[in-house]
Amino acid sequence: MGCNADDAELAADVLLLADLRGIDSHGAARLTGYVRLWENKRINTQPNITIVHETPTTATVDGDAGLGLVVAPFAMKLAIKKAEQYGSGWVAVRNSNHFGIAGYHALMAVEKDMIGFAMTNASPLVAPTFSNERLLGTNPMCYAFPAGKYPPVIVDMATSAAANGKLEIAQRKGKQVPEGWIQDADGNYTTDPHALKKGGSLLPLGGDYEHGSHKGFGLGATVDILSAVLSGANYGPWVPPFVAFLEPPADPVGLGIGHFVGAMRIDGFRPVDDFKTHLDNWIARFKSASAIDPNQKVVIPGEPEMEAMADREKNGIPLVDAVVNDLNGLAVRFGIKKI
Amino acid sequence: MGCNADDAELAADVLLLADLRGIDSHGAARLTGYVRLWENKRINTQPNITIVHETPTTATVDGDAGLGLVVAPFAMKLAIKKAEQYGSGWVAVRNSNHFGIAGYHALMAVEKDMIGFAMTNASPLVAPTFSNERLLGTNPMCYAFPAGKYPPVIVDMATSAAANGKLEIAQRKGKQVPEGWIQDADGNYTTDPHALKKGGSLLPLGGDYEHGSHKGFGLGATVDILSAVLSGANYGPWVPPFVAFLEPPADPVGLGIGHFVGAMRIDGFRPVDDFKTHLDNWIARFKSASAIDPNQKVVIPGEPEMEAMADREKNGIPLVDAVVNDLNGLAVRFGIKKI
Repeated sequence: MGCNADDAELAADVLLLADLRGIDSHGAARLTGYVRLWENKRINTQPNITIVHETPTTATVDGDAGLGLVVAPFAMKLAIKKAEQYGSGWVAVRNSNHFGIAGYHALMAVEKDMIGFAMTNASPLVAPTFSNERLLGTNPMCYAFPAGKYPPVIVDMATSAAANGKLEIAQRKGKQVPEGWIQDADGNYTTDPHALKKGGSLLPLGGDYEHGSHKGFGLGATVDILSAVLSGANYGPWVPPFVAFLEPPADPVGLGIGHFVGAMRIDGFRPVDDFKTHLDNWIARFKSASAIDPNQKVVIPGEPEMEAMADREKNGIPLVDAVVNDLNGLAVRFGIKKI
Repeated sequence: MGCNADDAELAADVLLLADLRGIDSHGAARLTGYVRLWENKRINTQPNITIVHETPTTATVDGDAGLGLVVAPFAMKLAIKKAEQYGSGWVAVRNSNHFGIAGYHALMAVEKDMIGFAMTNASPLVAPTFSNERLLGTNPMCYAFPAGKYPPVIVDMATSAAANGKLEIAQRKGKQVPEGWIQDADGNYTTDPHALKKGGSLLPLGGDYEHGSHKGFGLGATVDILSAVLSGANYGPWVPPFVAFLEPPADPVGLGIGHFVGAMRIDGFRPVDDFKTHLDNWIARFKSASAIDPNQKVVIPGEPEMEAMADREKNGIPLVDAVVNDLNGLAVRFGIKKI
């Protein structure tokens, strides 16, 4: 596509980590989507990523319409550099594209014994509480903490009740979805996984007001404001769609999509070893919590992804036929070897 | 109780703002609870609040067992000072007590054209997904953003499906609560608002795994780790109970309860006027979202509290008889005028 070698390798690395961690919806399966966006001239493969504003611990980065897979690590490196010097660093990003899994970026900080934060806004699919209009993306937020003998604690979550990837799985399997994930065009709960195509919308975490969907909406709003209102990207219904066949809104309020990343040095608060010892103790205590079903213990945030990674590093990454076909289509398109 | 005049006024200010904002569970109604903790020597009314560790933009504060209502504003002032100098400031707090509404502290930053963050851990009442053991507090998190012509956007939420205050209302009214708020001692959904007294637990935001309770658990865990594992306070089941009749655990893993507060200068990212103009546009767009029920428009986070405040500043704060009796009991106890 014209990316330089470093950028291509970095982007591949972000996608590969998603596949290794079992987040199949954000790995190689996304590659054709990025290529289509590039074909539609919505991704710039030779971006001039710039810092447009900064203080010792804050900055705004313009991604020049580059791949988010490349722009977000640029921003995170800057946040880490500021944290190394001043204790913490926070970078808002505008004019970017889909950045893959939030966890990749947050983990960059964890490797430096820092706490990592990463969030992004996304194409509008989620309706605020009391509305049937899609105004927010699934707007994921990620917090990552380094532990000692245990793997890091990684909270990496869409702020909707269910991420779009879970709907896609139900669609492929021809199954209904639970009530509380989506509503139809009129705002009624539905279990039809195809409801989004018929004008429906995803629901915020919580599902309905009685069960706290205003909190899920508040979290999605927080991600939107930090990622886009703060950076100068598009927010709410103005966020350009990820799918290339849908045109971006004609009246943008900013540039591209937005991210927000940050890093804080653990030893800006207490010695790293003390923190890790206590986080290990925290993890051990929660892992040993009384289980309702003896066959289903408490799961520490990030644990399933670590287990998937251990398995896949050893046994390889299983790819469904549709993804293999997509990748082989790209191989033909770019004159490289099929898999 | 022996607080100096400044601390007493500050603590009253925090409680008053809760009552003004309609968060009755965190206002004057809490006063007797604080007094009982002081009588049990668990609150130090003459604390020597100290900064035990710091970098240009991070710090850890020891509250010396003071009132959280006083310790948290001390920490927030420090965060704001660091933000003024370096762009952002982040303070973890240990050895503190209940800090009232998170919104008070976050709003201190908003008044300086900063984004405010405040969170605290709390007595364990919430079970992690798949467990029937109370290991987390309702662990609220608050993000606050200054707008232009509109009031600030304030996301101030317990990370459980429902806050304890809502249970107390159902208890007083003799009503059942919705499924998805609490479980009984065996981990079955129950609608009995008294289930907590019988060994039950609150559920994380999301309710059950199918509806994303692992996300609510992840958020509660994030608050616990930032507030306590990072600061050196007690975490998880070791957090001392708020009620004075329950003894703190005999094997503490830290000091008191923990908070985490932060401030980021808006103009560390973009000019304040640009941010406020776009946040006003964001608010206007979400307020005008298509409503499922024409009589129930979309509610912007913080809006109900602002409406309560406008009403109560004009018409006064209604107090239920139980709170009036409690306050008059304190008046007798301390030899001051009854209300």
